[in-house]
Amino acid sequence: MSKYWNKLINGIEPYVAGEQPKPGQKVIKLNTNENPYPPSPKVGEALKRFDLSDLRLYPDTNSTDVIRAAAKFDGVSEENIFCGNGSDEVLAIAFQTFFEKKALTGLPVLMPDYSYSFYPVFSEFYDIRRKTIALREDFRLDPDDYIGVPNCGIVFANPNAPTSRAIAVADCAKIAAANPDSVVIVDEAYVAFEEEYESAVSLINEYKNVCVIRTLSKAFSLAGIRLGYAVGSAELIEGLKRARDSFNSYPVDRLAQKVAEAALLDKDYYDETRAKIIATRKVFAKEIAELGFTMPPSSANFVYAKPPVQISAGTLYQNLRNKGILVRYFNKPVLCDYLRITIGTDEEMAQLTDAIRQEVLNAENS
Amino acid sequence: MSKYWNKLINGIEPYVAGEQPKPGQKVIKLNTNENPYPPSPKVGEALKRFDLSDLRLYPDTNSTDVIRAAAKFDGVSEENIFCGNGSDEVLAIAFQTFFEKKALTGLPVLMPDYSYSFYPVFSEFYDIRRKTIALREDFRLDPDDYIGVPNCGIVFANPNAPTSRAIAVADCAKIAAANPDSVVIVDEAYVAFEEEYESAVSLINEYKNVCVIRTLSKAFSLAGIRLGYAVGSAELIEGLKRARDSFNSYPVDRLAQKVAEAALLDKDYYDETRAKIIATRKVFAKEIAELGFTMPPSSANFVYAKPPVQISAGTLYQNLRNKGILVRYFNKPVLCDYLRITIGTDEEMAQLTDAIRQEVLNAENS
Repeated sequence: MSKYWNKLINGIEPYVAGEQPKPGQKVIKLNTNENPYPPSPKVGEALKRFDLSDLRLYPDTNSTDVIRAAAKFDGVSEENIFCGNGSDEVLAIAFQTFFEKKALTGLPVLMPDYSYSFYPVFSEFYDIRRKTIALREDFRLDPDDYIGVPNCGIVFANPNAPTSRAIAVADCAKIAAANPDSVVIVDEAYVAFEEEYESAVSLINEYKNVCVIRTLSKAFSLAGIRLGYAVGSAELIEGLKRARDSFNSYPVDRLAQKVAEAALLDKDYYDETRAKIIATRKVFAKEIAELGFTMPPSSANFVYAKPPVQISAGTLYQNLRNKGILVRYFNKPVLCDYLRITIGTDEEMAQLTDAIRQEVLNAENS
Repeated sequence: MSKYWNKLINGIEPYVAGEQPKPGQKVIKLNTNENPYPPSPKVGEALKRFDLSDLRLYPDTNSTDVIRAAAKFDGVSEENIFCGNGSDEVLAIAFQTFFEKKALTGLPVLMPDYSYSFYPVFSEFYDIRRKTIALREDFRLDPDDYIGVPNCGIVFANPNAPTSRAIAVADCAKIAAANPDSVVIVDEAYVAFEEEYESAVSLINEYKNVCVIRTLSKAFSLAGIRLGYAVGSAELIEGLKRARDSFNSYPVDRLAQKVAEAALLDKDYYDETRAKIIATRKVFAKEIAELGFTMPPSSANFVYAKPPVQISAGTLYQNLRNKGILVRYFNKPVLCDYLRITIGTDEEMAQLTDAIRQEVLNAENS
């Protein structure tokens, strides 16, 4: 509390990001869904060609070169893309642009009860009423639950986090069609890790109210560069630009633009990386299932897994941490029964599986 | 207008940044107060040492290495610094943290009537009442005008933009002392170009309500990297972090952190660059004064100059533009009598002076 902070800042509960190891600390880091592989080698080549004296000049406000590469990648027009400083910023700006303040509407934004924990924080921060809608018992998002519920907007992650389950694009379309006056934000941070890749980007021409959020943090191995983008009708994109230009006209720096463009243009490398992660996930999921873990089918670069009765998620999290393996544990009702485990390299997952096996055995014998 | 945008976005008038030339377009660009010199050579060395595979990992949320370098540069503690994605973002977050919404207070934020045109935009965007306080006729900010005026906060640029005039740090202290319950934001984007360098950073221990905003865009030649920071009491910095973590936990990417750290540690290069720009400004100001221009004394890397009666600022702006020289023209009452001209290299300013001389002569003869 401080008399210098306003009411909002005094009252808010900020988002808590996953733990970052200290520099030099040796850990197997499987807690923030980063990609275990380096970014495309084209990134290094692009940086080598970069003339550092250009850093004296402001960057292109629209990140035009990145937009061109993203439009090609997603098969849409350049007018359908908006770039920001990470998908968190793009999401925040989308909340601020498309959803209405409590003071001006009785209508809430709808979101699943377990989803990216930044969504409730954004709705607090921008003073937007929210209504959470329970996932089904198997962590499935049922599109019918989003039909006939008055709202000022809808947001969900697909695949969802931390639950890892995806719904079909046809189901996203169903939600968009049933809510023609609301913007439906589909956060596709993890979409690249679906085996049968399917994106709601295919809906944007038919549904002017669908806003898809993408990031280069996961599938492109560029969490360190902070590049997210929105894909939607020109009308939605124009709204996002208006918000950006009321806040920070130059959100993406020159180096980040170069890096992002190079990565987006290297689709072969992207395909290769996602295939490796999907393959590793299959092996890992099978092995921990054999150890008694249960989990929904994962379409993401993580699994959401409940340990066998012998050991609680909280204890396992702590014991793994003591062994230098970081996974994500949410100390909240329901979520506290599960661990969210990022898919690393085959080697990292083998070490983790060994450590888990040992922990389960120890728990059995104690 | 769009039914998908909320009321705020439908009603807002976004900030309009200075014109950016198209790639490959040959112009002398003196319209956005960029530095004509490249950044420190240490920046290139730091990038060479950077391991690109680290880009797969999220950056340090606090930009600790940058903070360490900035703390050394400014002679303060690390707990007194907050880093963001350009000083525009830091300013926006400061508005959102320290000033109160209209709906919750009758009190306005005070700002000079001519100042950085993003301030009124921020106050609209965050729904904060504002009261503009006229500068004196010679564009001087009089601290007495900020005493005894009820407010929820105060913001001004020092040196001010676009007017280029500075006030003494003792005057900033006077404003802070007279408003102990309000945060006083002193935006020092241009402070490096004062001949007798003096920063309000020296006030932060005595005045817990002073928040100084710095940027690497101007004096460090890094507009392309987007690094701004706030300096203030630990209490103020903590508030800014709460807002950041409700919006975007990783505002500064890994490459930007490396670049910023290297630049901040090269104080010799910084001193050399600012001395060159101050020297060029003196020559240029003298030469256009001889052509009949009038201007307040500049403490910035630009001058705010009124052309002689023969030619209007609007006409001169347009004619220079046709010759491939961009300066900034604000088509608004009072401001429309002036041009804001960035100080470039000696060569660029000589070309500009020649072009201006020609325009004034042509106007006299027509």
